Amino acid sequence: MHHGLLLKVETYFSAGEVDPARVVGATAVVIDVIRATSTIIEALAAGAQAVYPRLSSDEAIELANSLGREDTLLCGERRGLRIEGFDLGNSPLEFERERVAGKRLVMSTTNGTRAFLAAEDAERVLAASLMNLSAVRDEVVGHEHLVFVCAGKEDRFSLDDALCAGLIIQKLMGTMGRGSVELDLDDASRSAVALAKVYEPNANLLRQTAAGAALVEVGLAADLQLCADIDRYRLVPEMQERMIRLPDEE
Amino acid sequence: MHHGLLLKVETYFSAGEVDPARVVGATAVVIDVIRATSTIIEALAAGAQAVYPRLSSDEAIELANSLGREDTLLCGERRGLRIEGFDLGNSPLEFERERVAGKRLVMSTTNGTRAFLAAEDAERVLAASLMNLSAVRDEVVGHEHLVFVCAGKEDRFSLDDALCAGLIIQKLMGTMGRGSVELDLDDASRSAVALAKVYEPNANLLRQTAAGAALVEVGLAADLQLCADIDRYRLVPEMQERMIRLPDEE
Repeated sequence: MHHGLLLKVETYFSAGEVDPARVVGATAVVIDVIRATSTIIEALAAGAQAVYPRLSSDEAIELANSLGREDTLLCGERRGLRIEGFDLGNSPLEFERERVAGKRLVMSTTNGTRAFLAAEDAERVLAASLMNLSAVRDEVVGHEHLVFVCAGKEDRFSLDDALCAGLIIQKLMGTMGRGSVELDLDDASRSAVALAKVYEPNANLLRQTAAGAALVEVGLAADLQLCADIDRYRLVPEMQERMIRLPDEE
Repeated sequence: MHHGLLLKVETYFSAGEVDPARVVGATAVVIDVIRATSTIIEALAAGAQAVYPRLSSDEAIELANSLGREDTLLCGERRGLRIEGFDLGNSPLEFERERVAGKRLVMSTTNGTRAFLAAEDAERVLAASLMNLSAVRDEVVGHEHLVFVCAGKEDRFSLDDALCAGLIIQKLMGTMGRGSVELDLDDASRSAVALAKVYEPNANLLRQTAAGAALVEVGLAADLQLCADIDRYRLVPEMQERMIRLPDEE
């Protein structure tokens, strides 16, 4: 019998489920398809310097002031819409190069921000969405302990985030087949893979999720098209000391 | 276009997720495949009078004393094993007719008990496991708002419980196709259905779940065979005032 590397994979379906002690030493992959991680990927791809996730709008404002307001933008949403007085909301479509290139973005969102902070004790904290599935797979393929932290929606399961985790795990399983690496999946990870077998990730599916339907309701359906743009980028943002950046573009 | 009855279906993947206010007016279906609801079904089928779920072992002991110890049994587990000083653990195999017929069972388990109490504000609270899938489907088919409360495992997702919910929803969808009833599934319910499409409910699958593997580890693998006995009974236990009984066998 051949014993190769055992890769342990765990999935949390909402930020509220995460026990911070259990991510220590692991590589955490934070997922908020609709929309925080999609927006972060889009913003960094458009040349933003860094994204600073903060829980409350007060903390966000305070940090923006201390960073200096001239090259800092305040971004975030409550109930899907831009926080009053903030520069930008949480719509990836807003984060165009001419607005965000070279800027620091302080960001406060309902679920995504919490997911990043719940994961911050991990050895590495990466950001994933449908927009960078393959790049994330390539980045984590050698890691021995992976924890997917789905943002979820108000402490509950989100189909979009769980499906995204399942698609990455499925890609890892494809890679594994060729090597001597075995995957040890927990209940939630196995269920995420089942979702990847059953559901096609596209804008139509996103519209049917709780998070997607809520966006449609506030007139932001166009965001879903971008959030569903599979492998739009080959970038993996990484958080270090509460600052999310592209590691290769210092 | 034909508009029939819309049946709203929600699923909570762990007891900790439940917002008690959101189950008010609904029919709650509590699921703890490994093992509380399987054990409760087995116990009531074996002639037990009623099961009284209680959170702590102290509460359980106090209630057993006030009910009168001669026809009351104390049942429950911590880490899978019988609570010290209790009459029975939480293994369905222990609940044989000669031990439990006519008895009141006061029960304290790690996850299942919490799920029942999280659901207690619902209009009706039913108990489901793989052992009574079809009976539960028949019982809830006309109800307008169903909430599946999966016990989960220490506030996390359990594959066995989610799969059980998915199997019941799938059976409902089969029924629906012939009538004028439409199902409105939330993200978690749709994901549960995906599980039902991908996974076969059997003892082998149960052994691979976190809850099942923990049982195997403490020498209780035999329980899983019984927990996986699909439609073993046509009974639906129901909780009223923190007392779970078979409504038709007063």
